[in-house]
Amino acid sequence: MHYIGVDLGGTSIKAGIVDDSARILVDGKIPTRKEEGHERVLEDMAALCRDLMDQAGLQEKDIHSIGVGSPGPSDDKNGILIFATNLDFHNVPIRKKLQEHFNLPVHLENDANCAALAESVSGASRECKDSVLLTLGTGVGGGIVLNRKIYSGFNGAGSELGHMVIVNQGTLCTCGRLGCFEQYASATGLVRQTIEAIQQYPESLMNDLAGGDMSRVSAKTAFIAQRQRDATADRVVRQYIDYLSDGIVNIINILYPEMIVIGGGVSREGENLMRPLREAVLDKAFCHEVDNPRVVKALMGNEAGMVGAAMLGKINAGG
Amino acid sequence: MHYIGVDLGGTSIKAGIVDDSARILVDGKIPTRKEEGHERVLEDMAALCRDLMDQAGLQEKDIHSIGVGSPGPSDDKNGILIFATNLDFHNVPIRKKLQEHFNLPVHLENDANCAALAESVSGASRECKDSVLLTLGTGVGGGIVLNRKIYSGFNGAGSELGHMVIVNQGTLCTCGRLGCFEQYASATGLVRQTIEAIQQYPESLMNDLAGGDMSRVSAKTAFIAQRQRDATADRVVRQYIDYLSDGIVNIINILYPEMIVIGGGVSREGENLMRPLREAVLDKAFCHEVDNPRVVKALMGNEAGMVGAAMLGKINAGG
Repeated sequence: MHYIGVDLGGTSIKAGIVDDSARILVDGKIPTRKEEGHERVLEDMAALCRDLMDQAGLQEKDIHSIGVGSPGPSDDKNGILIFATNLDFHNVPIRKKLQEHFNLPVHLENDANCAALAESVSGASRECKDSVLLTLGTGVGGGIVLNRKIYSGFNGAGSELGHMVIVNQGTLCTCGRLGCFEQYASATGLVRQTIEAIQQYPESLMNDLAGGDMSRVSAKTAFIAQRQRDATADRVVRQYIDYLSDGIVNIINILYPEMIVIGGGVSREGENLMRPLREAVLDKAFCHEVDNPRVVKALMGNEAGMVGAAMLGKINAGG
Repeated sequence: MHYIGVDLGGTSIKAGIVDDSARILVDGKIPTRKEEGHERVLEDMAALCRDLMDQAGLQEKDIHSIGVGSPGPSDDKNGILIFATNLDFHNVPIRKKLQEHFNLPVHLENDANCAALAESVSGASRECKDSVLLTLGTGVGGGIVLNRKIYSGFNGAGSELGHMVIVNQGTLCTCGRLGCFEQYASATGLVRQTIEAIQQYPESLMNDLAGGDMSRVSAKTAFIAQRQRDATADRVVRQYIDYLSDGIVNIINILYPEMIVIGGGVSREGENLMRPLREAVLDKAFCHEVDNPRVVKALMGNEAGMVGAAMLGKINAGG
């Protein structure tokens, strides 16, 4: 059997057809014409799915279901995308619209939960029943997989792992709270911390790396300078890992999943990030008399959201 | 059918026999002779269970199972209490010892998870599939119930809801981390915050209420003085609710349970606590376009641990 997965993003719509083993047969990408409204976007989405079926030589009877991952909470029961800020979509009946084109089940989920499911099906946590994906990008996102299914709470709005306060009365977050994890552990947060350190210690190598231009500071800057033994960069990275490990250990102490999977831009640092992070997590562990969850790098790339969306029909709906 | 529940505490062992509806038929309490070692404590526990069966006129064939709630993580698979700090117990084979006296299944769980299960079976969250109990006492404890069963993670060590950092680099916690929720939202934390406020503002009514003796400050002091319009007390209570709501909204944003149940000593303030707490939680909610979890006061009293332990055999083991 085959499964269509769609990753609806603010810039592009990615879609693919995967097999029972979550292997991608065909995939494609088109721009999200969001300024033309959701009707247009959904027509484009349907056309992309039809194209992929044609490319793969498949018909509706060969397809089990369509899964759509969106950047916002979905009401899968009623087939509605509740809202997606960066698309300016509110209460869009995705299932109804797609079913005008396809006589197939349509499953909805937020994109971060889809990525967590993809890691669980064929990525880093494929051997684990319970795992949590944390993505360190513009924000901090992720999802919880319990008993190999997405856990999104009683209202389907979970999880918002980045919106956990770790610094009471700290930096204002986009969600309105002060001191959310996302403000400290995202790539954006790391860039802010790097710039603050450069402004305080302009002699730091990090300033040279950016050519004195703060708009050229990236989430890599501190890591690069740390490897060249810059003391200020070392402090920035250590502070960042302190924040990141605080949030991770919070999740561990609440959920004790078998594995925490780290994805997103910052995870590309690989072992330069993961080694000290594992040490910090172990150091902060509540209980040393039991096995503690493993902390590993994500394996799925940009296709995680699409593959996870495809797997919604197979895994999450119990199909 | 009937179920025996045992609540093993540092001071006393409470036990009871409940029916299928979690109603208590008989119960009893004996001191925990922990200084005489775990063998003695388990002999006493077995004798208490036998006494209760005699009182209720029941025999082994009338009993479905024995559940034991302990103040520490248990390995239910192997029937072992891993450790309990305030009993100085390590790797105690509770199941094996009890089964020397009773030919019955024996289930183990930590006491906070038992209390959460009791609220879910016959307390505040009895209508909810997914709920979280938070107890505000000496520490902050609690448990997670998902799909009406205790969720305690892959290693059975969860959850440690009090050990989530909400103040990075904050007050040192007993677990070794800095800034745990427990340090701010427990009754102990509230007493500390009250004493600090009195020392800074000795003209506060709270000082009079304590007769100038800081050892007489309790978790009630600030609430009593606030009702009498003491400005310092008002600030203490508001700050306390800010901390408490931070931790609660963290749990909500991670898990989105249908209900958060608040128990423990501080919850006895009732609506003086619950009303402003609900407002703060709603104010900090991530998403106002979905239903948010309800925050309610616990209904079970001191018998929660015992009733929940009894229900382990019925609910959690799928019996």
